[in-house]
Order: sequence, then structure tokens, then C-alpha cells
Amino acid sequence: MRVVLIRGVCAALRSSFPVFPRRCVRAGGAHSRLVLRAASATSSTGTRAKLTTGKFEKLSPEEEEEEADSDFSVREVVQSTKEAVVTLQKNNPATQPSLAILQLGEDDSVLEINKKMAGKMGLNVTQICLGKDCTEDEILEELLKLNDDPRVHGVYLHLPPAALTNRVLNSLKPEKDVDGISDWNTGKLVRGPLSTGFVPPLASAVLHLLENQEDSLEGKTVLLVGGESPFRLVLQCLIERRGMVTAKSHWDSKSLEREAAQADAVVLLDAGNVDIPPNWGRLGVVMICCETNLETDEDVMELMKLSAAYRAQNVVRSCTRWLQEQQYKPWRLRSLKLQPLTPVPSDLQISRAQTAKPVNHLAEEIGLLPEELEVYGRSKAKVRLSLLERLNSQPDGKYVLVAGVTPTPLGEGKSTVTIGLVQALSAHLNLNSFACLRQPSQGPTFGIKGGAAGGGYAQVIPMEEFNLHLTGDIHAITAANNLVAAAIDARMLHEATQSDKALFSRLVPSVNGVRRFSPIQISRLRRLGIIKSDPSSLSPEEVNSFVRLDLDPEKITWHRVVDTNDRFLRKITIGQASTEKGLTRETGFDIAVASEIMAILALADSMEDMKSRLGRMVVGTSRSGTPVTAEDLGVSGALAVLMKDAIKPTLMQTLEGTPVFVHAGPFANIAHGNSSVLADKLALKLVGEDGFVVTEAGFGADIGMEKFFNIKCRASGLRPNAVVLVATIRALKMHGGGPSVSAGAPLPTEYISENLNLVSGGCQSNLKKQIQNAQQFGVPVVVAINVFRTDTPAEIDLVCQLAKECGAFDAVPCHHWMQGGRGAVELAQAVKEATSKPSYFQFLYDLQMPIVEKIRTIAKRIYGADDIDVSAEAQRKIDYYHEQGYSTLPICMAKTHLSLSHLPERKGAPTGFVLPIRDVRASVGAGFIYPLVGTMSTMPGLPTRACFYDIDIDPITEEISGLF
Amino acid sequence: MRVVLIRGVCAALRSSFPVFPRRCVRAGGAHSRLVLRAASATSSTGTRAKLTTGKFEKLSPEEEEEEADSDFSVREVVQSTKEAVVTLQKNNPATQPSLAILQLGEDDSVLEINKKMAGKMGLNVTQICLGKDCTEDEILEELLKLNDDPRVHGVYLHLPPAALTNRVLNSLKPEKDVDGISDWNTGKLVRGPLSTGFVPPLASAVLHLLENQEDSLEGKTVLLVGGESPFRLVLQCLIERRGMVTAKSHWDSKSLEREAAQADAVVLLDAGNVDIPPNWGRLGVVMICCETNLETDEDVMELMKLSAAYRAQNVVRSCTRWLQEQQYKPWRLRSLKLQPLTPVPSDLQISRAQTAKPVNHLAEEIGLLPEELEVYGRSKAKVRLSLLERLNSQPDGKYVLVAGVTPTPLGEGKSTVTIGLVQALSAHLNLNSFACLRQPSQGPTFGIKGGAAGGGYAQVIPMEEFNLHLTGDIHAITAANNLVAAAIDARMLHEATQSDKALFSRLVPSVNGVRRFSPIQISRLRRLGIIKSDPSSLSPEEVNSFVRLDLDPEKITWHRVVDTNDRFLRKITIGQASTEKGLTRETGFDIAVASEIMAILALADSMEDMKSRLGRMVVGTSRSGTPVTAEDLGVSGALAVLMKDAIKPTLMQTLEGTPVFVHAGPFANIAHGNSSVLADKLALKLVGEDGFVVTEAGFGADIGMEKFFNIKCRASGLRPNAVVLVATIRALKMHGGGPSVSAGAPLPTEYISENLNLVSGGCQSNLKKQIQNAQQFGVPVVVAINVFRTDTPAEIDLVCQLAKECGAFDAVPCHHWMQGGRGAVELAQAVKEATSKPSYFQFLYDLQMPIVEKIRTIAKRIYGADDIDVSAEAQRKIDYYHEQGYSTLPICMAKTHLSLSHLPERKGAPTGFVLPIRDVRASVGAGFIYPLVGTMSTMPGLPTRACFYDIDIDPITEEISGLF
Repeated sequence: MRVVLIRGVCAALRSSFPVFPRRCVRAGGAHSRLVLRAASATSSTGTRAKLTTGKFEKLSPEEEEEEADSDFSVREVVQSTKEAVVTLQKNNPATQPSLAILQLGEDDSVLEINKKMAGKMGLNVTQICLGKDCTEDEILEELLKLNDDPRVHGVYLHLPPAALTNRVLNSLKPEKDVDGISDWNTGKLVRGPLSTGFVPPLASAVLHLLENQEDSLEGKTVLLVGGESPFRLVLQCLIERRGMVTAKSHWDSKSLEREAAQADAVVLLDAGNVDIPPNWGRLGVVMICCETNLETDEDVMELMKLSAAYRAQNVVRSCTRWLQEQQYKPWRLRSLKLQPLTPVPSDLQISRAQTAKPVNHLAEEIGLLPEELEVYGRSKAKVRLSLLERLNSQPDGKYVLVAGVTPTPLGEGKSTVTIGLVQALSAHLNLNSFACLRQPSQGPTFGIKGGAAGGGYAQVIPMEEFNLHLTGDIHAITAANNLVAAAIDARMLHEATQSDKALFSRLVPSVNGVRRFSPIQISRLRRLGIIKSDPSSLSPEEVNSFVRLDLDPEKITWHRVVDTNDRFLRKITIGQASTEKGLTRETGFDIAVASEIMAILALADSMEDMKSRLGRMVVGTSRSGTPVTAEDLGVSGALAVLMKDAIKPTLMQTLEGTPVFVHAGPFANIAHGNSSVLADKLALKLVGEDGFVVTEAGFGADIGMEKFFNIKCRASGLRPNAVVLVATIRALKMHGGGPSVSAGAPLPTEYISENLNLVSGGCQSNLKKQIQNAQQFGVPVVVAINVFRTDTPAEIDLVCQLAKECGAFDAVPCHHWMQGGRGAVELAQAVKEATSKPSYFQFLYDLQMPIVEKIRTIAKRIYGADDIDVSAEAQRKIDYYHEQGYSTLPICMAKTHLSLSHLPERKGAPTGFVLPIRDVRASVGAGFIYPLVGTMSTMPGLPTRACFYDIDIDPITEEISGLF
Repeated sequence: MRVVLIRGVCAALRSSFPVFPRRCVRAGGAHSRLVLRAASATSSTGTRAKLTTGKFEKLSPEEEEEEADSDFSVREVVQSTKEAVVTLQKNNPATQPSLAILQLGEDDSVLEINKKMAGKMGLNVTQICLGKDCTEDEILEELLKLNDDPRVHGVYLHLPPAALTNRVLNSLKPEKDVDGISDWNTGKLVRGPLSTGFVPPLASAVLHLLENQEDSLEGKTVLLVGGESPFRLVLQCLIERRGMVTAKSHWDSKSLEREAAQADAVVLLDAGNVDIPPNWGRLGVVMICCETNLETDEDVMELMKLSAAYRAQNVVRSCTRWLQEQQYKPWRLRSLKLQPLTPVPSDLQISRAQTAKPVNHLAEEIGLLPEELEVYGRSKAKVRLSLLERLNSQPDGKYVLVAGVTPTPLGEGKSTVTIGLVQALSAHLNLNSFACLRQPSQGPTFGIKGGAAGGGYAQVIPMEEFNLHLTGDIHAITAANNLVAAAIDARMLHEATQSDKALFSRLVPSVNGVRRFSPIQISRLRRLGIIKSDPSSLSPEEVNSFVRLDLDPEKITWHRVVDTNDRFLRKITIGQASTEKGLTRETGFDIAVASEIMAILALADSMEDMKSRLGRMVVGTSRSGTPVTAEDLGVSGALAVLMKDAIKPTLMQTLEGTPVFVHAGPFANIAHGNSSVLADKLALKLVGEDGFVVTEAGFGADIGMEKFFNIKCRASGLRPNAVVLVATIRALKMHGGGPSVSAGAPLPTEYISENLNLVSGGCQSNLKKQIQNAQQFGVPVVVAINVFRTDTPAEIDLVCQLAKECGAFDAVPCHHWMQGGRGAVELAQAVKEATSKPSYFQFLYDLQMPIVEKIRTIAKRIYGADDIDVSAEAQRKIDYYHEQGYSTLPICMAKTHLSLSHLPERKGAPTGFVLPIRDVRASVGAGFIYPLVGTMSTMPGLPTRACFYDIDIDPITEEISGLF
């Protein structure tokens, strides 16, 4: 072993050894000379340890040069870290590795070195300086802020030992503990190997010095002297892991000198005031002194750099890990095991038998950051939209739409297919996948049986949470919708009972003698063409047009809503109390999900977009024929405030523990019946490049899918990769000429025994037409046969064969209802295959086409109509919308879902009919025109025996019963 | 050093040393002989380590006896642990320390020993046996269940090394890691001292043996041989902490024999197949072999006990810690520092300038268990009622009511006093304290300015969350209320359009050929006196009375509700659509908080109680005069389901980080205007014996306080310790004869300059009467003067003096609005003093008194009326309620809050008036009769310039503006 610099001696020892030789030993060339530089770290007992080596007198000029050369260690670390930063920033220009220093009082020399070092490597440094007398609570408050700040990658707790309490230490997020001092990190270090924690910078510095000897110390003995601190144990552990052998001794050991002589390297810990004899150790022994309570002086300053460099390196490592976390990767999803029973129990029993993962665990598994999550109880969480920004550069996953053939009144199971498919993709094929579902109205939950959370072994759990309040989005919509309604009637009353002047002085009140327009009022003035901002400058005519919306009570289109099946509110007269001065009028309530605000929630792609759509909503017409908007009422800001949480999608999980977004649920007839654009967008980022997002469209493909493509995809800019078309043998038989199917009545025998003729008829008519409908948009179709127990193999085979003949990319049976994801693996594989092909998506019509032409295009090409027949009333409205500039909006047909035509009894693929357009309405805020083909009920009723008779809760166990 | 049994040798070595002597060394009496028994533990690398000692041949009978004696070590541990269990169970009869074993496959001998040992000590043992082929996910699923199960105190992961992954290991809750194997625990052990973690049982066993030598090993050297595992480091650390010196060597060290000879004790780790020479060690050396991969045999079984005993001891320790956590203790609350500005900024600005603690941190600080919390976003959480059961034996804190003098129309600041007081108690006097507040209606938030979250530097934060949806309770009430309404009208329609037979066959449908009554229907049959459960056995008359509620449309008292200020819904006609067949009727909407369901939420003391109150609600009367209840409608179970989350109070915090419950907010006129019984009960348990719960009553003390005592305290059984009576100089001047005060108008000069006469007049009249009102209930009164900037010292002093003369326990000024808790410290001290005195609480009237007498008592004794004047209509209702058995309900007066009398303009303490009782109504479910003294509006309106004009949200930062 060659001799290398050797003695670390601390300032405190100087006086004890006035005659101590300048250097104990000196040998070798410049490169073999190792100058230990001081690193400062806070050891895990909370005492400050300093690694130092002493030079007791100034070096001569030549020696200084040598000294500069010997900076090699630091330069090496600095250089490699710098390069890492450059590479990191090249790939992530928006990210700068950032160290936060939490300190009491002013900078000291240790901090200065650390800041300089960090700066040299290209790190960003933030300092939080607290007063020296601050409390533990105040330190914690700042620390927690640093924990939560995604721009901070490492926190250096530069605190005096007394302030560095266990509570403070262990409050620091492990990912940011670049000093490696928390219990968790210490445990990681001891248990090793260290893939997630950090090596304390001081330990790194010691290891660096030990490992960078000319002669390797591998297999040699390193003597650790003194130090009962955890730091010694950590160091011992790290040294041994590098292939050296450690021995230990203590300061008052009588054989210390002999032990030192036998060692190949000596590390002195907590030397304190102990005198270290100058003639210790044999030639060639590396000696490193890690001193605590060291007075800082120039020499020491110089020697702190190596440790500071390693601290900075840890910050870069932390930042790199953070960036890696953001990258696409297959999820490590803890899937929940299903053990399907036969016969299949009730939906509620199945849901309750499974224990949902805590939603924050699920969120972590799919790569959400804690700050992106707003947990609601144990099984639901809202996801913040900031995610879209963070994953902005991440490519989207594959986008799959689940649609269906024209259904029987019993429904053909699109939701269960959607859920079964993601269970298969995520839990069985280990592909990242997300289902995006609509939130169901709470009204029917208490009316007629039928949950919306899927069914059998393909469900979202807990289903009672899914079907009840969820996270309150529909309640928020109700509140927002009804605030608009209250504002309309109150405004009409105020306008009817006040002069222009009185209205103006109330609408623009004097506050401390000053009148000011609110921003919402300025917007209205601009729309009126009044470019003024001083209220006193308005002419009487301008005041008049500003204060009077002059709503025509006959032309108010805005309804109130409740999320209850309350048929007696369909048509009501309001304002009959004497306080309302006889201003009665007829109006009605709709079910909450029919609110235009729900459609807006589903189509908005940001808070800003939602807010401006809310402001654009037209609530009625003035007596002079001008549309009156929510912004005219002054209520648009308040609506956005009421909707600020509703805009965030809700995360839940399937029975197999795979992620689901539940968000928005607009009516599928008067609105577009699809879940939200935002949920799809978030999910597409979360699943990443090779992942799948499966979203569902309401009703049959002629309605739900057509609107999905022409309205939702247009709003979102997203392009689908495949359509899954759900069919049942039952529905196909109906389309093939089977007897009529109705809810409540037993199924005719044709539907429960084999009948290949009927099946074939249904395939050749409705199935074929719906496949072709998808193909008109250029998207490949996979037919999923939702298999029932009574379906025969021959029937299933026939559908598979005919579907492919009709142009389907593939057609497969699925058994998710009885088997969960395992029963849909074949479908998942077909979908995977289909989405690997290029898709040639195109819209059905151009927005610039006249309204009538757009309607005609849909009727002829999707429904198979010969033409349309537009009523006079409808034509009048179309002309009015054209005048108002609404004619470039897409079309949202309000047609029965029970037939491709407007006549529910015409099954199969009817032809030779003319589609009547009875009336046309507009949801200007949501952004579509909706022609009414028939009478659409927007308020369901309760049956004689509503399901609430069976719904109950055990007051002790809180178990719900009777819910589906 | 004496010689002790010494050699642990493992089965694997036997063959290597066929001639190995039976025992190396033997000396001393029975008690000095130490037989090492095998303990089994899973070391932290995941390999199974076994502590064992070998006896190579059967002992002779005498030796066997000696052996039994030498069980001393185990017996000692068993005995002390057993005693600990007995003590623990004496103090906590409901708790049994419980070990859960998570294992793959069947029991092995190690498990059997552990189970036997645990049983011997009185532990409960649960085994979770998974299949040998189970996945990591399945193990995790079970593990997480054990984490969440409060009945499990320790988890023994008896898993093969391959299954004991880092992920599994670190998923175990540290509090239950009785094997001490997680990273966190390892870090704790290394960092020491160990106050919260666990020593691994095997390490405890080794330490036990080392420490229980006749000659102490203190200061002596223990040689650790072999083992690179973290277990060695942990052991080294623990041995050193016990005052011994450790040395280490490795198996292939050439000097091993010499090192062993020099040591005072030797611990052999990971001996594996290494041959241990028989003549090792000098006389008296303790030698312990911790072997891995040991074949189990009888000897080994015998030797595992010590470790098993320590494992059981850890379980008992865990259970003890858990119980200690449940005990009352002063909270270690991280208070948020306030730095009040002058002039005081807007409420929203102050709220936003403070960063609320994450609500789960707050919950932990106040002793809530994670499983008792349902977090809603970052700053709100619902608290589960199971807490009441857990803290059942914990004494309640002091119960303080904040009431006020008769207010001006501007309000006198009861909410800010309530919040300021708890800020002072918790953050400045370090006394556990909770504020219990009402949730405000969302309607007025968008109507007329005025938040309900307090104001200035005494607020609940974030105030926008408080004032908007909160956790959806009011939305749930709206949904429940309107489901009842929909059910009423739908039922009338169905009864009007169907025969008895048709109704019966629908209400009791045949499912698979069987008709059954639902439990709710059985309840109705019982009320009708029909004791039958077979639907087919009902006579036609019975069917008729069962299926027909025969509601009288004129006598339906149930209103619909919305949480919007929508005046046009005050009186409406419903059912005008043709589908409702002309069954129109007049009805109305109230604001949601006026719903009887809100009053029920506030008064219920459990889920069971709430459910039965919901069922008892009377919605109207049949044509024959019978009350019809929610249960008759079949809807009571569904209502309880809708309210299942609303029943849990919501935890928030003040500006200074102290806890607040927000729960329920019934109208203060037609209902009792107090926050919930459950919030108060939970808070009283949480603050514990020396803590304070401050709850607020609406309106002046004549209404809010009277109802608090006579209605709420009667329902809850809770007894108040003090009343804080809030007064302002402004209100007192008004009562002393000052000019009238009205919202919007500038204050007359009397109110902004000193006027001692007016102040004195107000004190001698209204203040005095309200103090006396509180005293009639036997509760001490502290007068809190909510100081405004214009109040003079002389005015304040005068109030303090006169209040005490009028019988107040104390009277103090408070400045919380400008200063936060610091400004209310004097009040806090006065309250603390007042509650330390005995309280002699009594009700004002007995429930058995006739309704009229109860009303008269309140009018005369609280209001100062000469008598009451009951209208004919009111008397008719009173007689009807008496007939129906409602006459023992307490009284909830619906009177103006602006005067002690029924005439708002009569200030001070009016006398010589007769209180008119215009009408009387009943909330049978909530449980009170409410006489109407005037006209009470139950639906507010919107002003011309509602505050929604100013309310806005920045779409990027999501900052809300314009909200108060």
C-alpha cells in the first residue's frame, strides 16, 4: 500500500499539538496525493459532523499548485454531476434540479460553500431563512410546504441540533431527504441495497476517499474509531458493502494505537477533544477525521466541498428519479383477485364481498402524485387537472369507444363490457388501462332497479358510492342550474318593479362614494357595444339597455332541475306567493343530468373553457328577440365557483382493482350522452403510450357513437383507435324478427332457445348497419357478444362469422359478467390487435354545412332515412339560430334509441322512411343544436313500488341492502 | 466470569462432529445454567434466522429436571408479560392483545410454538393462511386488512424469504411490526432510543441471554461472528447500547479462534455449514448461535420459545401503546402563526393568506385514528361515529355555549367569538378545545354578503370550502327531502288511478312466484294493527287500509326544498303536465336548511336514532285524519341511506390550526338553530377531561339558548358548564334607547362616539334579562364584549362592571376579530374559571306539562310576557297533536330574534305584552312542536345586485374572488 495523505486533524486539536509536523507522511506524485476536503452534514443524531483534514500551515506556492491538482476528487464529482444536469435538462427543458435550504438565521460559511457548489453544477437553490427563535411548529410548516412543492427535489435541513428534532427529521418526505437522515432512510441504508434512499453526503465523501486510493482497499481493514452515533453504523455498513472489512475501536481503548497500526485505513469519529498522537498508524494508512463541533476557519471551508458536492449530486439524483416517475411505464398494479361464484350473486353482494384498495394506493400505482389527488373517503378521489400539464409531453394511449347495436328495452350491457374489458386488459394482460364511465343520476336509483356501475363480476366498486352522491358533482350542477333559474325570475321581478335609475344604482352601487362595474358587467357592456367603464358616463339609453334584460316570460327556455324522479314537477306554475306580485309563469323541472351544465361539464377541456361555456348559455330571449345569456345575468363567475370541484374527474376502481374515471353523465337524448372529455384526456395520459382508455357512449351506435365522433371528438380533438360494438343474441334475434321484448314481462321462448334464423336476420340488418356506421368514420370495429346463459355455441359462432363478413375487424364472445376480466381476455386481445392498425378517422359532416344539411346527412347516412321532414316551427328556429350565428354548431339528435328510425317498433335496419324534425333547440353553452325527432321526457317518474321500499341500511354495520 | 452453558450448535453441524462432547463446559448450580432455546424470527433481510442451542444426546432424568429449571429465562418473560396482560385487561376489559399471523400453507412447528406461547400469555391469535402459490398482491391485500383492523396489535409475517419482499415488508403498519423488520423500524433501532419501534424478538432473546449472566457483561466484549445481514448491525447497535463492547469477525478470518478466545461472549451469525471447532473460546465464554436454514427437530422446537415469548411481549407492548393513544392527553397541536395586519383585510384575503394544515395531520394531532377519518380533499374530513364507541369510557370535556344579547339586524359576532375563543384556548393556553359550528346554507352565499365562517382573524379556513358545498350534507338533505316529496305525489297519483287489487299486486309484487312484504311494509302493517306476514292472508279491508294512505291533498305539510334563494318557488302549483292527469295542487319550496331532515340531523345521536326519526316524520294527514309518516310511504330506509355520510361531522380548522366541527345548520326560527348533538358529543370525547367544547346557538339567548337547553340538551343528555353571552356596545346602545340600526344604512352618530347613558340603559335592560335567562337554567354566564374600533375604554369598563352587577360570573372585552386568539385570551381565562365551578343545570319546564303551559312558561319566564294569546287555529292544532300523542314533545318557538317580545321594534327588555300564538306546527321526526308567533319566511330572495356579480374564479390559479 502506498502512502497517501493521511491525517485529518481538526482545529480543536491544534493547540494540543503545537509541534505537530506539517504532514505526517508524504509520498507519491501529485495524483496520488489526496487532500481531504471538509464536507458538512447533519448526522442522524442531529449533531453536525464535519469531515476535515488539516494542513497546519500555509502551503508554499508549489504546494498550492499541487493542492489545486489534488482538487481532483471534488472536480470529478462536480464534473459528472454537471454532465448529468446537462443531460437531464436537455431531455426536460422545463425542469431544473432544485435544492431548498431550510435554515435558522443568516448564511454561514457551510451554507455558502453548499450554495456555490450547487450553483456550479447548475442547480437551483432556494433558501428559507427562519428566525433563530422560531418554534418547531414554524419549522414544520415550512418543511411541509417544501414537501408539497414539486419544484423542490432536495431539502437541506441546516438547523442547529436542538431544532433538528425527531419530529422535524421524520416529517421530511423521504424522496427529498438528500442528507439521508430520516429513520426511514437510515433503515433503507442498513437494510440495503439502496434503490430509493440517499447516502448521507458525509458518508459518500468518506467512501470516495477510501475508494479512490491508488491501491485498492478492497478486502482491507478500515478501523472506525469512536462514535456511538448511527452515522458510524451507517458508515460501517456502507464500507462493508463496498468490499472492505471494518474493525472498530473506541477512544479510550488501551490497544487503540496497536489497532490503528494494524488497519489499512482509519476513520476517526467524534474525536472531540481527544488527543491524537502524531505517530499513529503505519506508513500508508489513510486516516480520515470526521469531526463534530468544529470551529469553521478557512482551511475547513476549503475542505467542505466534497461533501457539498455529494449533497448536490443527491439533489440531481432525486430530480432524475422524480422525472423517471413521470415517464410512461407499465403499472405495478395490485390487482384484486376474483373468485366468481355460481350462480352469480346480486351486484351489491359481489361488490361488498370485495375490499376496494384505498384509493390513494391505487393513485400511487398509476403514477399520480399525492398533490394531484383529492381523496373523498376511502374509495373515491378527485384528480386535479394540473396532471394534464405535468404529462403534457407524454404520448396518449389508445382510445377505444364502446357502443352497441340498437338495444332491447332491457339494455345489452355496454357498461359491463366496458368494465370487463379494462379488467381483462389491466388485470390479465398487464396492460395499463382505464375505463371512463358516466356518473348515473341518483333519481332512478330510488325508482326502477338497474345500477350503472356495471354488473355481475364486471363492476365499479363500491357500487353504492358510485350510485349515490359520489363526489357531489350532480349536486353542484343542481345548485348551479338553479342559481341561474333563481336569478332569472328575481331579475324579472326587479325589472318589473324598479325604474331604470333605481335598477342602475342598485346594480352598480356606490361603495364608499365610488361606483364601479364588476368584470362580469363590463363584459355585458361590451356585448351591448358600450365601450365605457365609468358608470357615470352612460347615457340614459345606455343605462336602459344595460339594466334591462327585458326577458320575455314566454321565451324562457331555462328549467330548474332536481336529481329526483319527481314527475309532478314536469309542468308547474311559479311565483304564486303574494310577495312575487302576480308575476306567475309556467315552467318545469328536469332531472339534474338533463341540465345544459351537465353537457358543458362533459365537453369542457379546461376550467377556462368551462367558465366561458357557462357564460355563453342562453336562458331565454328578450322581448326584442335577443338571446339572454348567463353572463348577462351576472352569474357566470358564481357558476364556475360552484363547479370548481365538479370539473375534476373522480377516480374509482373495478372489482379487480383497476382504475376507473367516473365523470359527467349528460342525457343521451337531448344531450350527447358521453362521459367527459377531461376524464378521457387525463386517462389517456395516465395509461401512456401502450395503454388503453375505454370509454362508453350511451344508447345504440347510431346515437351514442355518432355523437361521440361528431360532437365529443370534435370538442376534444381526440381520435379514437377502435370501436367495440356490443351485441347480444337477444337483441340480434329481436332485430331478426323476434317477438317484442319488454321490461317486466317474461322473455318469449325464441329468446331462450336456439334460433339461428333470427340471429342471422339480426346480424344482416342492425349489426351490419351499425358496423357500417362506425366504418363511415374510418374506425375499426370489434364486435363483442355479451354472452347470456341461454345462448348456444352455434348462435355465438354464427354471429362471429357474420360480423366479420359484415366488415368487423373481429368478433368475439365475452363472459365478463360471470367471470370478470378473465371472461373478456379474448375481447381484450382483439381490441389490442385492432388498435395496432392505423385508423383513418374522419367526421361525418363539416361544421360549415347548413343546419338542415347536417341533420339530413345524419338521418340518411347513419339512420338510413330517405330524407328529413322539417316542421315549420323547426325551420323558424333554424333560421333564428342561423341569424344568431349558431349555425356552425354540431348537431345532437334527440331520437329514440330503440330503432335506427324514429319509430321504436321498427327493428332491424329500417329503410324507406322520412325522419320528421318536430322542433329544434340549442344548447349554446354546451355547443350543439338539438333537433327533436319525438317527444323526449326530461323528468322520469316513480313506479308504484319504487325500489326505495327495499333500500335500507343497518344502523350498526352501516351495510346497505336492496340497492340492485 | 462464571461458566455458563455456552454452545449453540445447529443440527447441520452434528455430522461434522460426531465426537463432539455432550457439553463443552458445565458449571454452577441450576439457576446459573442457561439453556438457550430456539427463537425464530425473520431477519430483516428476509432470511429466516434461528436462535438455537444444541444438546446432542438426550439428557438423563436429573438433567431433565435441571433443564426444566433452566426454563427460567422463558418463564421470566412469560410471567412478566402475563402480568402485563392481566393489568391491561383489568383497566380495559374490552381489549385483548391480539397477534395476527399471516402465513402460507399449514402450521409448522415454529408457528405452533408461537401460538402456544401467545396463548399462555393470554393473547388472542388470528391466523390468515394463504395458499403456497399466492401472489404478492394477495399477501398485500390481507396485510392491509390487518393494518386496518384495530383489534390486531401485532402482525407476524411467517412467510418464506421469497414472499417477504420489500414491498410486503414495508406495507406493514410500523405500529404493528412486532418483528421489527421494516425499514422504518430498522432506522428507528439504529437511530435510537427506541420509543416507538420494536426490538426484533430474536435480538431480544440474544440480549436477554447476554444480560442475564451471573457476571455482568457490562463493559465486556461481545464478538459477533459472520452475518452481513442488517440483523447483525441492529444487534451490534443494541448490544453496544446496553453497555457492552462489540467486536466483529467473519467466518473465514484466520484469527477467528484468537478473537473468540479474547471475547467474553460470542454470537455466531449465519454459521451455515461452517465447522465450529469444539475447543473454541475460553472458559466462561457465552456462545450463542443464531442459525439460519436450520432443520427443525425436537430440540430446536424446545429452543424457540424465548424468541416467541419476546414476540408476544411486543404484541402486548403494541396493545399498551395503542391503549395509551386512546387516553386523554394534552394535544401536541401544531398551531398556525397569525400575523394580523392593520387595517384588517377582507375575510377571504385573510383566509387565503393562511395555509391550512392537511386535515389528516390535524386529525392525528387530536388523537383520531386513520380509520376514523374520511378525508374530503385536503382541508375537510368526515369523522366516523365509531369514535364514540372507542372513547366511550373517556370523560367528557367542559361544554360551553355561546349565545348573545338580542342583536341588531347587523349581527353581533357570536361566530367570531366562538372561533376566537377556541383559538385562544387551544393555540394560546394550550388547552384542548373544539368549536362546533353550523353549516351555512349555500343560498345566501350568492345572495347577500355575510359569511358564516367567522370573520377577521377568527375564521374557519378555507372559508370558501366552508361556505360552498362543504362535504355535501345539505345536498344530501335536499335529495332526501325531495325524495319524500316525489313519493307523496307519485303515491297520490297511483292511488287515484289504480284499484286496491292492482295497487296491492304492484306494492307486493310476485318475484319468482312468491309475494313478500318488505321490512318497511311490515312496520306499516304493525302500525295498522295487522299482525300478519303472509300477503295472501290479508282480508280485502286489510288490503285496502294497507295500500291506501289516502292522503288529503289539502293537508300535506311536506314541502320540497332547494339550497338556493329562489323566491318564485315560495308558492307554486304542481302536476300541470297532462301525464299527471289533472292532479294539480298548491305547494311550495323552502330553503334546504329549513327541512325537517336538517333538524333531525342536528338532534340525532346515532344512525339508529336518525333512521327512526326519519321514519316518524309526518308528511300530512289522511282524509280520515290519521298522520301519514315517511315510513308509511316506504321511504325511510332510502332516506337513511341518502343521509349515511351526512351524519358524520366534518372536521376543519381555525386560522390558528385548531380543530372545528361543522355539522348541521337547522333554521333558528322554525327549528332550533343549533349545530349537531353528534358533533358536540364527538368533540367532548376528543378534547377529554380538561378540554373545552364551544358550541354556538343561533339568534339571541332568548331563542337560541333557550332551545339549546330545552331541546338540544334534552335530546343529547349533555349538560353545559357555562354560557358565553356576546354583547356589543352597539347592540347595548340600541337597547338603551339608541336610534334604530338597519343594514345598508350608515350608523347614527350615537353608535360611533362615546355614550355611557345608552350603554348603561342597554346593560340594565336586555343584557340583564339575558343573563337572568341563562341563570334560570343554573348555568354561569361570562359576558364577552365583542369590541369594535369605535368603542371607548369607559364604555367597555362600564359594561364589565354592570354585567357583573347583573349576576354575570365575569365580563371581559375581546379583540379576536383584529388579533385572532391572542385577542380572546382574557375571555378564555374567564371561561376556564367559570367552568371550574359546579353547574346546577335544570330544564325550564317538564315535558309532561300541557303544550299550552309549556309555551306560556317560555313566554313569561324567558321573554317577559304577561301571558300568551292562543288563536283558535292554534288551539285546534294543539288539541289534534294532543290526540296523536305528540303533547310530550318540547317546544320550539318561532319568534323574531330582534326583540325579546314578538314585536321587532321593542328593544331592551319589554314588559306588559301578551304573546300571540298564531298557529302551531309539529316536526314529529325531529321531535318538537313549533308555535308560530309571527310570519316566518322559509325561502329568502335575491337582492337586485346579488353578490354573485362579484364572485369569480381565476381559471388558471383557481383562486376565488368576491366571496365576502
